[in-house]
Amino acid sequence: MQLRSYFPILNWGRTYSRQALANDLFAAVIVTIMLIPQSLAYALLAGLPAEAGIYASIVPIMLYAVFGTSRALAVGPVAVISLMTAAAVGQVAQQGTAGYATAALVLAGLSGAILLAMGLFRLGFLANFLSHPVIAGFITASGILIAASQLKHVLGISAGGDTLPNIVGSIFAHLDQTNFITLGIGLAAIAFLFWVRKGLKPLLHRLGTPKMLAELLTKAGPVAAVVVTTVLVDAAALDNAGVQIVGAVPQSLPPFTLPAATFDFVEALIGPAILISIIGFVESISVAQTLAAKKRQRIDPNQELIGLGAANIGAALTGGYPVTGGFARSVVNFDAGAETPAAGAFTAMGLAIAAVALTPLIYFLPKATLAATIVVAVLSLVDFSILRKAWAYSKADFAAVAATVVVTLGCGVETGVTAGVALSIALHLYKTSRPHVAEVGRVPGTEHFRNILRHKVETHPSLLSLRIDESLYFANARFLEDLIQDRVTQGSPIRHVVLMCSAVNEIDFSALESLEAINHRLTEFGIGFHLSEVKGPVMDRLQKSHFLDGLNGRVFLSQFDAMMNLTPIPEPAEAA
Amino acid sequence: MQLRSYFPILNWGRTYSRQALANDLFAAVIVTIMLIPQSLAYALLAGLPAEAGIYASIVPIMLYAVFGTSRALAVGPVAVISLMTAAAVGQVAQQGTAGYATAALVLAGLSGAILLAMGLFRLGFLANFLSHPVIAGFITASGILIAASQLKHVLGISAGGDTLPNIVGSIFAHLDQTNFITLGIGLAAIAFLFWVRKGLKPLLHRLGTPKMLAELLTKAGPVAAVVVTTVLVDAAALDNAGVQIVGAVPQSLPPFTLPAATFDFVEALIGPAILISIIGFVESISVAQTLAAKKRQRIDPNQELIGLGAANIGAALTGGYPVTGGFARSVVNFDAGAETPAAGAFTAMGLAIAAVALTPLIYFLPKATLAATIVVAVLSLVDFSILRKAWAYSKADFAAVAATVVVTLGCGVETGVTAGVALSIALHLYKTSRPHVAEVGRVPGTEHFRNILRHKVETHPSLLSLRIDESLYFANARFLEDLIQDRVTQGSPIRHVVLMCSAVNEIDFSALESLEAINHRLTEFGIGFHLSEVKGPVMDRLQKSHFLDGLNGRVFLSQFDAMMNLTPIPEPAEAA
Repeated sequence: MQLRSYFPILNWGRTYSRQALANDLFAAVIVTIMLIPQSLAYALLAGLPAEAGIYASIVPIMLYAVFGTSRALAVGPVAVISLMTAAAVGQVAQQGTAGYATAALVLAGLSGAILLAMGLFRLGFLANFLSHPVIAGFITASGILIAASQLKHVLGISAGGDTLPNIVGSIFAHLDQTNFITLGIGLAAIAFLFWVRKGLKPLLHRLGTPKMLAELLTKAGPVAAVVVTTVLVDAAALDNAGVQIVGAVPQSLPPFTLPAATFDFVEALIGPAILISIIGFVESISVAQTLAAKKRQRIDPNQELIGLGAANIGAALTGGYPVTGGFARSVVNFDAGAETPAAGAFTAMGLAIAAVALTPLIYFLPKATLAATIVVAVLSLVDFSILRKAWAYSKADFAAVAATVVVTLGCGVETGVTAGVALSIALHLYKTSRPHVAEVGRVPGTEHFRNILRHKVETHPSLLSLRIDESLYFANARFLEDLIQDRVTQGSPIRHVVLMCSAVNEIDFSALESLEAINHRLTEFGIGFHLSEVKGPVMDRLQKSHFLDGLNGRVFLSQFDAMMNLTPIPEPAEAA
Repeated sequence: MQLRSYFPILNWGRTYSRQALANDLFAAVIVTIMLIPQSLAYALLAGLPAEAGIYASIVPIMLYAVFGTSRALAVGPVAVISLMTAAAVGQVAQQGTAGYATAALVLAGLSGAILLAMGLFRLGFLANFLSHPVIAGFITASGILIAASQLKHVLGISAGGDTLPNIVGSIFAHLDQTNFITLGIGLAAIAFLFWVRKGLKPLLHRLGTPKMLAELLTKAGPVAAVVVTTVLVDAAALDNAGVQIVGAVPQSLPPFTLPAATFDFVEALIGPAILISIIGFVESISVAQTLAAKKRQRIDPNQELIGLGAANIGAALTGGYPVTGGFARSVVNFDAGAETPAAGAFTAMGLAIAAVALTPLIYFLPKATLAATIVVAVLSLVDFSILRKAWAYSKADFAAVAATVVVTLGCGVETGVTAGVALSIALHLYKTSRPHVAEVGRVPGTEHFRNILRHKVETHPSLLSLRIDESLYFANARFLEDLIQDRVTQGSPIRHVVLMCSAVNEIDFSALESLEAINHRLTEFGIGFHLSEVKGPVMDRLQKSHFLDGLNGRVFLSQFDAMMNLTPIPEPAEAA
């Protein structure tokens, strides 16, 4: 059992049927056709030679098939991680040098080691600290950054930059170098790919094309763009007219690479590697869980970390760069009927054949076409509606998503996601440091107690019942002290204070000291101090301290009990 | 009124009586006698010339009298802040150089600006994130570091180091330079001062000395040690035998200094300045609140920030270094009968007279005597009992205090306090990311619902009532999704799920999306999804979203309502 939980392949592998094989093979064909141009394009985005994208799609996908728990996830290079790779590696090496490719391998290795360690130490929960709004904001901002970064290939100019102002500034500075033939190819490819996305499927539907064929034709759009523009450049010798082409790509299976990690490299890349690991994990697990839920399958987050860790170490050892489970490719894989991770293994074989057989054919492939496939793919990720939704629901969530978008665009991906996470945690802590406190009274005819300001309730002047809507911990311990001091020193007729603890999920050591101080002060004033509705785990903790020995009042099971015992009014129900 | 809240002096100043004047003058005499050796000693600890300690006690204390809200707080150099100053300034300048003194002024100016800004922006709540255990651990570890750092003066050797291993290592490396006359003076002073602390008061009490005189004599212990050892060194010309002395101290009032802050200085010192500001504020406000509570006075934390900010800016402009409200001196001031901040102003005058008149007399004062006063003062701060108490109450609190102690001793004060705060926040977030969830049932004969595992309660097989003991936010949103999925897919007879929200103080945007996903999944399974006991603020928020429109069940005022409506059992009370 233990072995099977670490090697999910032992579960689905034993019952693999002929029907599953057929379905997996069909899905693999569609995904392979989609992945060939995409892998080349994402390598370009990461600043790496085209073959790195293909290599990163072969061994990682096979390792994930052995260790991963998702049946449909397709692992490989994805847009956001490619952009983050470019940003991280660009800090330690110059694009086009051997050091750059090595740094990308080291980054994949580090990322793999981090993911594996997180899986073995069961740290998958860390990903939860990336809130939904922060992720949504980050994906949108990254999509804009990626599209902007590809404009240089569409224009045929050389430009750089990691942030939106830098990229735009650099493009404007080099605008006079624009190659109009490149621009024509790029714009045509973009227009064609948008039409394939939006217009082709309805058209095929009207023409009565069978659904599966229509699916295949739609996914083959980028391949068609690649084939047509490559043939065009070759036939018209447009490379002599300044159109940038992919050029010679080694015709080989993924090479064995052992990234030589110097201490300086590791030190410079460890921070980005942590961020890439967590972002990659979040993207991957979101896709995996969405697809699994449709078939009522289960995803084990910690085993997913192990699967992704193995995939990244595989990428590091075979000439790739950081990978994760991609949204688009996984959905295509799922929709095409993939039943098991074997579909991934077949895709890997398809790509291996492409790496050996097809690479000479893409010598004349214009970079503008690849850039066009990226632009069209990432613009579908851009969705500003999260800003509107978050604004309507909660200003804190809006602040987090707005900060993520602005900082990602203005300062780059790493700073952006860090700022978003830090701000959402800070706002959460701020809110819990100033808890909502309600004075409560009894809802007539029930044993239920609610806020006196919102409900018609019964109270008694000698009894102050306060419901603290937060766990008591260091950040708000002093707040409670001040609050109670304010309430009882106003010369009121209060004889008893009851703290209704239904919303207090923890009392830490600092808060315990505050409660002792409150008890001490109320005792001096001759006022009774009581607790009600203290939960089991909190009560267990209090019993370990001396607080209950010193408490001048009692701990009541319910607020109703407290009211019955501390006020002279007979209960209406009993009086009746 | 607005003006008075910024200038508390306008409140107490208008009603200042002859009796208050007499009390304040008496307190000022005692505090002045105590402060002269202490100021010199803390300057030594901060690595500054002796006069800096005196200067830092004059203008700051007067500015605090104008802006501060505490009646008894005595502001000036304190042990922990002096140590932190030495650590911070030592990173940018060499001890004994003019740059070192300038850096100390810049540090005080920055710290003053930070405190003022925090006060004006009402950020006093930030200090709450330093939990009681972290503060206790930090004070204890700092006390040990300070005592260790003074051993070199007692031994008469030169040694350095910011961490306990460094300090001890450096002392051992220079142990052969020990000056035995210095060691004799130092040990005798330590023994004498300990005896004054522990043995003198009981002795005076037995001798029938009046209480006030006994108080004065006890506080004059350090002065006696200073006088005796100074006379001894002068008479026996021990400075020629290698005993380090204070030497020439300028005979003047505090000079006007305008710290020339270069950008590099500011950049290097801003981090330490933030820590010094927060630690200083926490120390000061704790003392102020303790003393104010004894006389039922109120402290305004944000106005305290302004008072301390003004004091530090005063220190920066008059040859001082960072200051704050000190524990020992404030307690002495309070016990001696100080009624208003005017006592502080009189103390400042006493010290000004000392600065002009007495400085020639301390030429032969041995540094070993000052070190002895520091060692005896700080060892009283060392208290490891917090480790035992925290261990007994909560392992998380213990981890925070243990980390603070170990990291402060091993890596220095700044890293130590940062580690303690970061760990306590991280542990708090970790706990809230894996909330306690209880399945609840009705306590028989009441309308109260409790955990089925801890109480004998009534339940119904078709109704699953879950009480989530935490606010729902991004860190635990997915946790709830998984939990409910696990409970309802086990082929159970459950027809309705009720989420009892009495402990849910917030539902953020991420959690809202999770609730929508849960509702969607339960609807597919034909199970009703309901909420109960949703609090006012949470309900307000939910009504801004579309969640309630899509909810397949209802929102009940109380869990009892939910049970009555969703289960077929008649309520016993009604049946009777």
